[in-house]
Amino acid sequence: MEILELKPVAEQLFKDMRELSFDGVGVTRDSYGAGETAAASYLRDFALRHGLQAQADRAANLVLRLPQADTGAPATWVGSHLDSVPQGGNFDGLAGIVAGLLCQFRQKRSGRHSRVPLQVVGFRGEESAWFGKAYMGSGALLGKLSADDLALAHRHSGASLAACMTAAGADVEAIRAQAPLLDKAKVHAYLELHIEQGPVMVARGLPVAVVPGIRGNVRHNRIQCIGEAGHSGAVPRWLRKDAMFAVADLITRLDEHWRVLLERGIDLVVTTGVVSTSPAEHSISRIPGMVSFSFEARSKSEETLEGFHQLLRTECKAISRDRGVRFAFDRRIESAPATMDGRLCALLTQACRQRDLPVEPVPSGAGHDASLFANAGIPTGMLFVRNENGSHNPHEAMDIDDFLLGVQVLDDTIASL
Amino acid sequence: MEILELKPVAEQLFKDMRELSFDGVGVTRDSYGAGETAAASYLRDFALRHGLQAQADRAANLVLRLPQADTGAPATWVGSHLDSVPQGGNFDGLAGIVAGLLCQFRQKRSGRHSRVPLQVVGFRGEESAWFGKAYMGSGALLGKLSADDLALAHRHSGASLAACMTAAGADVEAIRAQAPLLDKAKVHAYLELHIEQGPVMVARGLPVAVVPGIRGNVRHNRIQCIGEAGHSGAVPRWLRKDAMFAVADLITRLDEHWRVLLERGIDLVVTTGVVSTSPAEHSISRIPGMVSFSFEARSKSEETLEGFHQLLRTECKAISRDRGVRFAFDRRIESAPATMDGRLCALLTQACRQRDLPVEPVPSGAGHDASLFANAGIPTGMLFVRNENGSHNPHEAMDIDDFLLGVQVLDDTIASL
Repeated sequence: MEILELKPVAEQLFKDMRELSFDGVGVTRDSYGAGETAAASYLRDFALRHGLQAQADRAANLVLRLPQADTGAPATWVGSHLDSVPQGGNFDGLAGIVAGLLCQFRQKRSGRHSRVPLQVVGFRGEESAWFGKAYMGSGALLGKLSADDLALAHRHSGASLAACMTAAGADVEAIRAQAPLLDKAKVHAYLELHIEQGPVMVARGLPVAVVPGIRGNVRHNRIQCIGEAGHSGAVPRWLRKDAMFAVADLITRLDEHWRVLLERGIDLVVTTGVVSTSPAEHSISRIPGMVSFSFEARSKSEETLEGFHQLLRTECKAISRDRGVRFAFDRRIESAPATMDGRLCALLTQACRQRDLPVEPVPSGAGHDASLFANAGIPTGMLFVRNENGSHNPHEAMDIDDFLLGVQVLDDTIASL
Repeated sequence: MEILELKPVAEQLFKDMRELSFDGVGVTRDSYGAGETAAASYLRDFALRHGLQAQADRAANLVLRLPQADTGAPATWVGSHLDSVPQGGNFDGLAGIVAGLLCQFRQKRSGRHSRVPLQVVGFRGEESAWFGKAYMGSGALLGKLSADDLALAHRHSGASLAACMTAAGADVEAIRAQAPLLDKAKVHAYLELHIEQGPVMVARGLPVAVVPGIRGNVRHNRIQCIGEAGHSGAVPRWLRKDAMFAVADLITRLDEHWRVLLERGIDLVVTTGVVSTSPAEHSISRIPGMVSFSFEARSKSEETLEGFHQLLRTECKAISRDRGVRFAFDRRIESAPATMDGRLCALLTQACRQRDLPVEPVPSGAGHDASLFANAGIPTGMLFVRNENGSHNPHEAMDIDDFLLGVQVLDDTIASL
């Protein structure tokens, strides 16, 4: 029994999970909601059916083990996340869990076990789309979820993260205490396989790639620009306090700063993913009195993130002066950039070479649960699998053969630990 | 019985109507909906209680007459609209109907009747906020509502304008035929009193002002900018097709064109009242793949409107090229600018002078039902009453004494016809 022979199992798992989560457009597995819980249940049942052990940790993440691995000895963790963005793709997150599961499946079937026991973790709540906060499940486990985080509201229901985590079975009181809910000494290594969410590997012809580091980010979920509503026909330009023209001006200024920074070779991406005039009062014939928008900058450099956030505040001040509006900021949310463990990168690279795969490091523009493990001082490694059309959309396209090559590299690496 | 003695009646009418339409923030009288119908019912009952006649015309507008005026002879119409924008103010529209009603009330009580009979019309559906189309009630009456207009969907329920008009009692088949539902020869003059919706009269110290002309407009209810969704962390700037950055760029370019045109002394206002990333799929960590927005330009000059619309199309083409997005336009909707009747303007001005009021013409930046009457060749005059804080918002502030001066001028003018 070799990894490549598990292709039908992998195909079946992805197919079933896609059907389970299909929303008419893409897949929706909402963090601490019905979609994510259904995904966890399916995988738990699959694992139990094939002789693995399944349980939930104190943060309600899904944990899978081989029966003989349940010794209390340090384990190699292979993890990724169960949830998706609304109308997202099937592979973002799920691929990493299925990869770990196939490695366990291979060990179980072949009887060839890794020296260090293998544990698979399906994290809940990695996507910020639902509560405006990423890495909730891994963060809870590592003692990194604050009381402010737990008070965040669900984008649709308005229910607090604490309430939704409790409903999913998490021990919110323990999480609120912000002590790690795991013994870090028992994590020999953390490995994560994930689809690439950008276009680099397709362009470079790389089926798999070792990730040397992960971008951090600085965010605001909701900045409000407050101007003055008025009749669109009756207020001259010089008397207007148009919140939408002000936000457009801001975005255009930030875009220009971004362009200039890139010319200097600085690593940065900037996004305003959610922008809206106020649905309760906007109309075609009304000058928008209020616009809310999200802000996100990502970079490998904390200094760049800090600098760009300063630029945002400075431009908001300038626009307030020029256009008679004001900006109200919600809490600033951050994720630190992360560097992967040198030894694990070397082992993953060696495994690629031994399987005759081209080798080129590809840094991660997107954040991952792996960032938290790396920043918690746990040796962490990450492997990308080629994927077309990006992620966070229904058009993700990961070739199953590329995926199996990735699982093979992962399996080889686990064996070498 | 003089007009100024009717102050308690005016106060009561505005108070009752405000309570009737209060939505927790402002007043909401939705076109061809519950709010507008409740307003019409209240005014009809008030009129009947005070010895006036009340009925609905074939477009479901409210028509009030003195009993002796029902002779079939040409009448002086005094009209304005029943509806409001969502969370709007109490005076926009309603002031003009109450003004006409007070003139009838004065005639009824005093027994001094105008030579030309007086008819008051409360139009439905003047506000474009509900169906994306303005002047629906007066347009229906004048044969100006097209099949495309009748197919427009309600902003919340999605029900067609035709269905909502039918439910309100309008003869939609007759309206669809686009023949006038009134005999223009029976309209001796159309007069409309309305609050000013801009800041000019407050600045100039004018309690009332004669309106020489009304701005026209060109609109799109919903233009879509279609880019490509993607993970916010993983797609570099040069590969992005960010629909929000594209729309921000467009708005900023239009703002700059507008600024330059104003420097050349051209009359123009530009508004994007409704702008939004797609609520079904937007998130803080997703590059917006689609943004929808409304567009409106208003001017006293049709040439300016045409020119600015051309600029919009040109800039959309340029941005499509620069940013890899495309723009999908819905139907272009227009309202022609209108010039008020010279003789009626002179009579209104004379009435102001005789009441020792300062005289200064104030053109209307906003459109009114009066535009349609003027453009249908009916002698039309318009009077503004001073109002603070603009309109289409809950902070409208018309002084009741200013209002009564306006009604006095209206009453004097009606008597002089």
